[in-house]
Amino acid sequence: MSLKHITEADVEKIALGAAVLGTGGGGDPHIGTLIARRLIREHGPVTVKALSEITDEDFVVPVGMIGAPSVAVEKIMAEEELAAVLRLLETACGRKATAIMPIEIGGGNSLIPVACAAITGLPIVDADAMGRAFPEAQMVTFHLAGYGPGYTSMVDSHGNAVLTKPVDGAWSEQLARALTIPMGGSATMADYAYGGEVVRECAIPETLSRARDIGALLLDPSQDGIDPATRLMDELDAYKLFEGKIVDIKRVFDGGFTKGHATLEGLGNDKGDRFELSFQNEMLLATRNGQLAAVTPDLISVLDSVTGRPITTETLKYGARVHVIGMACHEKWRTEKGLETAGPAYFGYPVEFVPIEELSREDLHA
Amino acid sequence: MSLKHITEADVEKIALGAAVLGTGGGGDPHIGTLIARRLIREHGPVTVKALSEITDEDFVVPVGMIGAPSVAVEKIMAEEELAAVLRLLETACGRKATAIMPIEIGGGNSLIPVACAAITGLPIVDADAMGRAFPEAQMVTFHLAGYGPGYTSMVDSHGNAVLTKPVDGAWSEQLARALTIPMGGSATMADYAYGGEVVRECAIPETLSRARDIGALLLDPSQDGIDPATRLMDELDAYKLFEGKIVDIKRVFDGGFTKGHATLEGLGNDKGDRFELSFQNEMLLATRNGQLAAVTPDLISVLDSVTGRPITTETLKYGARVHVIGMACHEKWRTEKGLETAGPAYFGYPVEFVPIEELSREDLHA
Repeated sequence: MSLKHITEADVEKIALGAAVLGTGGGGDPHIGTLIARRLIREHGPVTVKALSEITDEDFVVPVGMIGAPSVAVEKIMAEEELAAVLRLLETACGRKATAIMPIEIGGGNSLIPVACAAITGLPIVDADAMGRAFPEAQMVTFHLAGYGPGYTSMVDSHGNAVLTKPVDGAWSEQLARALTIPMGGSATMADYAYGGEVVRECAIPETLSRARDIGALLLDPSQDGIDPATRLMDELDAYKLFEGKIVDIKRVFDGGFTKGHATLEGLGNDKGDRFELSFQNEMLLATRNGQLAAVTPDLISVLDSVTGRPITTETLKYGARVHVIGMACHEKWRTEKGLETAGPAYFGYPVEFVPIEELSREDLHA
Repeated sequence: MSLKHITEADVEKIALGAAVLGTGGGGDPHIGTLIARRLIREHGPVTVKALSEITDEDFVVPVGMIGAPSVAVEKIMAEEELAAVLRLLETACGRKATAIMPIEIGGGNSLIPVACAAITGLPIVDADAMGRAFPEAQMVTFHLAGYGPGYTSMVDSHGNAVLTKPVDGAWSEQLARALTIPMGGSATMADYAYGGEVVRECAIPETLSRARDIGALLLDPSQDGIDPATRLMDELDAYKLFEGKIVDIKRVFDGGFTKGHATLEGLGNDKGDRFELSFQNEMLLATRNGQLAAVTPDLISVLDSVTGRPITTETLKYGARVHVIGMACHEKWRTEKGLETAGPAYFGYPVEFVPIEELSREDLHA
């Protein structure tokens, strides 16, 4: 059932589910949980609007965090930043927001807009502009449809405020990424603010509800003892990619991103096999014994085998026992423009995109 | 005599004189000359206002270039950038500029505001906020008097526009410097826009006129055959620091700055001596046989021994024969706050500031 309100009790579920859809990125779920819970407790539940309820008169502002999750973990966003980043964008656009929206569905970035909605009293739209999380600001469905970032506002924990009017989405990413470095590695950001007509055309619907459902399943005590990959198969239309133990992890903070690789050794049915994960904030490429297992823009998520909780690229640890699952991305990402924007070539991976349905079918036949 | 108008014929003189006062930085004089000449030819001479003529009703906007001179040499600023950067600041401040001012006196940055004045039809103030050139945005007399940068606007040659509201001058520098990197290494910037009262309190008067006078002297054919250091002694109240040949030059583009060191071997009276120059966009430290000869915030300028033309840190070349001169900075820079802001310790040089008058006196006695 679609969300109508987001209460304190929904926050943990959304955080967990969004971390699964966030493929290891999208901001730290713990930070998002803390801030959204506190602000809902203070200001009351947040009203959720379905994408179909958004009218042409609406002005929808996506609000989130930009930067490396490594840094955001250390740096709790202040309530004032959320209000300031919205006010700055409203002033530049000369239009008051009527609703807030997540720019992406990721652990933190699904809840930071909820927190912003709580303090401003605005509703949140049950939708986002990725249907998952991606590392760069132009990797949004608005960009795929030919809409630019418009004005973008950024505010940091020191009190600095920046408004940019970039030429296009790629420039927005470059300017914003450069700014996150002096801003302390992460900042609060609002961009791609559009009227209802454009938002209805571009946004991917029901992703907050979907995150809540996934989270509910992971927290359901009746499912205890069932491994998390199995638990999520039906709900998510997901594929089991690997069960194993992390035996190597390389992670650096580079150019405003958390980048790296992890190597897994198989356990259970996968014993004797080797699995590799590459990430840039999000998990982007998975290979099994050197063969492609899943690749961006399809989704790759790593779940703790015992707790079922999704593991972010920031918290991947040597020795962790995990299940890796894969999911098909939204069809908008499988178009020519979608693959050009967030396919493997964009990130410099020397592979062609193959849909996870086909990769997993071949795998079964092998 | 103080400037009343800036004509095409004044441009080269101002460029040369400002390059002397710019101590090797402040933007490339050639770029500033080209753009200011062209725009004065198209729009007519620029009216110059003395600082004392600025009233409380005036709103004065300093306009210039930020970035490494190395890059600006390759990248000619477009006329549109000059108009756009001013309009953006005016919109943010909700106030129309009544005059333009150079933020610093340097080869390029003394003429870019002249070009901006030419296209907008506004007068230029015969003053600046440094009395020389410095590499960082907070190194201005406004900062010394406790005034922040206010809104700052930046525009690049790609058409990107950024408005920042930094907490203070140091943050303004950090945000602006980070932005110049994606913007292509340099950008057009406006900051420290203030009403007439603050500008009269802070700005250093008659620096454009002084630059014009220095340039006129360097171009005066009656002075041919006299070495440039000797030629400028009286006009500038300058000190001859060294005559020599550049035998080593190290220069890198680092963090948005042109940084490096040059070594000179003595010629003429200085034969057998060795002279070292350290720079970060501007010449900041000079030693003779390991002994301090001059140090920031005092001025150090390098002049071509034959042509008399000032040499920027970007164009220092192996084998060049040069005269190095030093000058006292404006007294505002010799205060505690002035030295904290732009003294040797700020740049990491392990020396105490000693006024050039004292250093040169000791030198004579040695």
